[in-house]
Amino acid sequence: MTDKNRPAPEKGSPRTLPTTPDPAATKDLRKLLDGRWASARDVFRNNVNAKELLHDPTLSMDEAREAILNKLSLLAETGIQKGVFAPENGGAGDTGATITSLEMLGYADLSTMVKGGVQWGLWGGAVDALGTERHSHYIKDIIDLKLLGCFGMTERGHGSDVQNIETTATYDLETKEFIVDSPTPSAQKVYIGNAAKHGRMAAVFAQLYTPGTKESHGVHCVLVPIRDEDGNPMPGVTIGDHGHKGGLLGVDNGTLLFDKVRVPREALLNRFGDVSEDGVYTSPIESRNRRFFTMLGTLIRGRVAVGAAAGAATRASLTIALRYAMRRRQFEGLPGKEKRLIDHRAHRLRLLPRLARSYALALLQNQMVERLHDQTAAVNRGEWDVATPTDEQLRRQRETESRAAAVKVAATAHATDTIQECREACGGAGYMDENRLTIFKADSDVFTTFEGDNTVLVQMVGKELITAYAHGLSELSPIEMVKFGVENISDVLRQRTSIPLTVQSLIDRVSDREENSLFDAGYQVKIIQEREHNLLKSLARRLKDAKKMEPADAVKLVDRAQDHLIDLAWARIDTMLIEALIEAEAELPADSPAFPVLEQIRHLFAFSTILKHAGWYQEQNILSGNRTKAARAAVNDLVDSIGPWSGVLVDAFGIPDALVDVPMLNDSGVDSLTGAAE
Amino acid sequence: MTDKNRPAPEKGSPRTLPTTPDPAATKDLRKLLDGRWASARDVFRNNVNAKELLHDPTLSMDEAREAILNKLSLLAETGIQKGVFAPENGGAGDTGATITSLEMLGYADLSTMVKGGVQWGLWGGAVDALGTERHSHYIKDIIDLKLLGCFGMTERGHGSDVQNIETTATYDLETKEFIVDSPTPSAQKVYIGNAAKHGRMAAVFAQLYTPGTKESHGVHCVLVPIRDEDGNPMPGVTIGDHGHKGGLLGVDNGTLLFDKVRVPREALLNRFGDVSEDGVYTSPIESRNRRFFTMLGTLIRGRVAVGAAAGAATRASLTIALRYAMRRRQFEGLPGKEKRLIDHRAHRLRLLPRLARSYALALLQNQMVERLHDQTAAVNRGEWDVATPTDEQLRRQRETESRAAAVKVAATAHATDTIQECREACGGAGYMDENRLTIFKADSDVFTTFEGDNTVLVQMVGKELITAYAHGLSELSPIEMVKFGVENISDVLRQRTSIPLTVQSLIDRVSDREENSLFDAGYQVKIIQEREHNLLKSLARRLKDAKKMEPADAVKLVDRAQDHLIDLAWARIDTMLIEALIEAEAELPADSPAFPVLEQIRHLFAFSTILKHAGWYQEQNILSGNRTKAARAAVNDLVDSIGPWSGVLVDAFGIPDALVDVPMLNDSGVDSLTGAAE
Repeated sequence: MTDKNRPAPEKGSPRTLPTTPDPAATKDLRKLLDGRWASARDVFRNNVNAKELLHDPTLSMDEAREAILNKLSLLAETGIQKGVFAPENGGAGDTGATITSLEMLGYADLSTMVKGGVQWGLWGGAVDALGTERHSHYIKDIIDLKLLGCFGMTERGHGSDVQNIETTATYDLETKEFIVDSPTPSAQKVYIGNAAKHGRMAAVFAQLYTPGTKESHGVHCVLVPIRDEDGNPMPGVTIGDHGHKGGLLGVDNGTLLFDKVRVPREALLNRFGDVSEDGVYTSPIESRNRRFFTMLGTLIRGRVAVGAAAGAATRASLTIALRYAMRRRQFEGLPGKEKRLIDHRAHRLRLLPRLARSYALALLQNQMVERLHDQTAAVNRGEWDVATPTDEQLRRQRETESRAAAVKVAATAHATDTIQECREACGGAGYMDENRLTIFKADSDVFTTFEGDNTVLVQMVGKELITAYAHGLSELSPIEMVKFGVENISDVLRQRTSIPLTVQSLIDRVSDREENSLFDAGYQVKIIQEREHNLLKSLARRLKDAKKMEPADAVKLVDRAQDHLIDLAWARIDTMLIEALIEAEAELPADSPAFPVLEQIRHLFAFSTILKHAGWYQEQNILSGNRTKAARAAVNDLVDSIGPWSGVLVDAFGIPDALVDVPMLNDSGVDSLTGAAE
Repeated sequence: MTDKNRPAPEKGSPRTLPTTPDPAATKDLRKLLDGRWASARDVFRNNVNAKELLHDPTLSMDEAREAILNKLSLLAETGIQKGVFAPENGGAGDTGATITSLEMLGYADLSTMVKGGVQWGLWGGAVDALGTERHSHYIKDIIDLKLLGCFGMTERGHGSDVQNIETTATYDLETKEFIVDSPTPSAQKVYIGNAAKHGRMAAVFAQLYTPGTKESHGVHCVLVPIRDEDGNPMPGVTIGDHGHKGGLLGVDNGTLLFDKVRVPREALLNRFGDVSEDGVYTSPIESRNRRFFTMLGTLIRGRVAVGAAAGAATRASLTIALRYAMRRRQFEGLPGKEKRLIDHRAHRLRLLPRLARSYALALLQNQMVERLHDQTAAVNRGEWDVATPTDEQLRRQRETESRAAAVKVAATAHATDTIQECREACGGAGYMDENRLTIFKADSDVFTTFEGDNTVLVQMVGKELITAYAHGLSELSPIEMVKFGVENISDVLRQRTSIPLTVQSLIDRVSDREENSLFDAGYQVKIIQEREHNLLKSLARRLKDAKKMEPADAVKLVDRAQDHLIDLAWARIDTMLIEALIEAEAELPADSPAFPVLEQIRHLFAFSTILKHAGWYQEQNILSGNRTKAARAAVNDLVDSIGPWSGVLVDAFGIPDALVDVPMLNDSGVDSLTGAAE
């Protein structure tokens, strides 16, 4: 049957996949998705009683908080948390394994994941990364949950803008103590996990003052006991409870206010800045700005873990929604025969492009974890001194930070969008908590906000691109960025993109041909990358004049380019995603049964990504209207082709059945599992 | 300061609004938005203690259910519910006032709105609209909450596809009773409000059988007692409890299963179909299909109310998020001076186009309520017999149904999108339940699903457009639709669009000019409408061949056009929205201080709507790339211009302060209200 009204198809269209999927493809796909820490995934799959981790929505807030603490104890027994800590602090120094384990936890319960992230990643991580041997003794108790603590960074007045927090830590020469104080109501620490109920101590970020200097030495971190043995607030510490939130009921977020609380001099986490007994400040890092960003570097792991867990929640939701779509029948197709939801093209179009993006994200996330792991391992081996890195290390560190921000933004925004779509795609059943989608939705909702608000992070990604061409100036404020001006773009592009070799060779192959097929992998990455490069160049042109301007005008100009900057960052993210897909494909044996289906997933990702900007591609004369039309037709063909393979594609995620076998999949009104096309 | 890299601006660009907004504009805007039932809005504003209605997230499910019931009693005392019932049943026959009141309730608590909607609108509405004088005595008790009941339509196996529900009501000649039965597990009634806890009776939709006829007479509605005086299930009735959901905790959704439950013959709501003592079926409506759709017509009011409440929740969320954006400062602009969130263009771009669409929706919603009210009033006055309407009445009825579906889809999808954006735009504070956005989000989430799943309804809107040109054939199945074929499109367009006169005259004025400005109202509606017409014509062409095909091929063809059909329906919705804005503008006095700001709201709606399809407009050679680029620049200019007026624009919604004055607006770290630019 032909449809003569559709546009001429894009040439090189791949063959439609067989309508009977080949379960043999699952194994190779899973191997790719499992990545380097497949064994950590298997530990979770085989050793954790996942069902015990599921959230029980009937619990009250107090009950939920205790339940999460119990789940955390169960997890602590497995030892997965040790990986985040340096060997000299009694840790296992295996960042990759720990983040992968937290990711797996995302399939089960995000509250537990977040509470674990607060305790071990943020609170423990701060002590581990910012402290020295004099704080090392805390780590064991942190690992074993004997010392629960808080990461006291965010303030009411300053959430994303950490550099301007108001809490002070002032050294008192007489008593050799720091006085920790919240000088204004807006200095109150807010949304702090473990604060409302369980935390005994807090790593408090504060402006550090020493006698005789008027200016702060910048933001530093001080350990402050906040509760006594009986759980009562310490003198001078006022603790508040945020109570009910949009989700994460079991995570006890609270507020902290300090009224001239005294702590010993040794409470300062002094790895990157110390105060001597006689009140003299010293630091191994001269630049105040770089010191700040070095300390903040400890946040990266949290960002990577949040992106990982968001990805897991998304994949679990897609697994549930697609399995439901393959079984649930509704509305007549042929007389007397109701169609399955997946047999409706509108249904395929709402879920499958999102599935393709989830594949790309999972692969990119794995690369991110590898990168962070290898970097941390180099630090642990003593090959990389964080305080005095080489120029190349500094460049790599900045790229890691920028990539971590990009991946976190991409994964959490995709989670918000896709989990919502999955909920709606399951109709009324999707709204019942027992089917888990609403719980994933509520719990993951704040992931776009915490560990760096997406709106802020995405601009960081864009600014990094814009500023990176010159001498490692990552710390530019908008005004400085503008003043600095932007030149020499071609160098930036060469240096910054660090395109994987596999991908570059594909691009090189297409660059000469006159007319390329949009099904050509090299051309796909070229087209997607072209948007990034084009936006970078035009943004640089727009901002160039700012350096000659008065500050007020320059600020206005930068504000007016804010949407441009954000578009640029998203274009960068899309380039990273297509690259990750292509690299993964290259890892598959050519005769793998997974090959054709992964190829179509890449096509679906590429086409739907390009089509999001169909207007822009035409405006820039990069693609003609006929080609964007053909691309739209190709997306339809691709979801038709991939539809029957949905089961294989979600099976490859390898999520324990106990976590996704929700009641609606076994309802009357749906086909039995064996009856489904999987 | 000029930006020489931006495209040449679209000609006819309006002047930027003054940076100091004129509060005098609020009054006229509110008058427009309040519409015909402004008095019902004022009753809510002045007489209802709105704060008592707010959801308390600390309640357990059982407590929440009792709390909602108490709130319903408070509301019942105001008598707002009487409007839904016909005067002969003791009602006030004022549909407009009741729906408007339910809408106002959406500002306060969607759980109460939904429970009220179930009790009075669905359960009461079914008895009122489908019953006859012999059921009239129930109405008073329904109004006074002495008889709580259920609307038993949805089944596990058939949610959206009501025509194929499986529950049976079989007349027993011997006992003169109906036997109500759930023959299969998939016949179980699910998601039924009032079922889990409070309902005593249910209006059960079932296939009606009489002795001697093998085929069902179609879906009818029978009253079945489900609980005795002590609240225990009646014999043969199995009641289940859905427990926790994604929101609406206080609404007691449950399941109902009937095991040959006997009810008297008079339990049949017999307005559109009756069974005599000796088992003979009669109906004033001959066509089985039309009978079904006439009965289902009772659902329209629910759809309209759901759209109204979704709109209210959205406006409340925008009010909260925009007031926060006008006070909350974050990140440095000029040295030493932090910018307010609203001073960031990215922030304006995420909220203000959604505000513009909310304006359009509120105005369209008011038109919808008027239309439904006038139609119901005509029925109540005896000028319109629903069972035997004139051809013109039938046409109008179908258009009302289609418009109700379109408005429900538009309002609920917009709520899901916009409330989410508001939550994220308020960062961590937005995630705290005390600031209400998460509660609006959770409660409104199912609005895209219930009272007609949006995916189904939007296709209904598209199908109505495609099939309406011929003799009132609204009941076509996809196959019938295909078989019927589609010709004579120009007639459809003329007949179906029923463009308001104000709008048509604007279109006529532009139609001759060679080059029009996108700021011209007539050209805006023409461009938006062109997408609708173009998609309708091309869809008709695509489907034309289907009538010659084998059913299997025809089904495939229709499925392959599903995305096209959905695009068409959304294009129709956008046309309706721009028309509503233009009509509202025409109602303003020319010298109204509200005029320039409403005009810019229309521009913002028009440009952002057109830009959503920038790719398509270029593909179709309707707009050049230069113009879509200029349109993008215009959106930026418009949000810059409208930004300072955000306060005026949300004040015009007239939401009681008690409902939107959430804690984060008074936090330290934000400006005081008086300090804000409003």
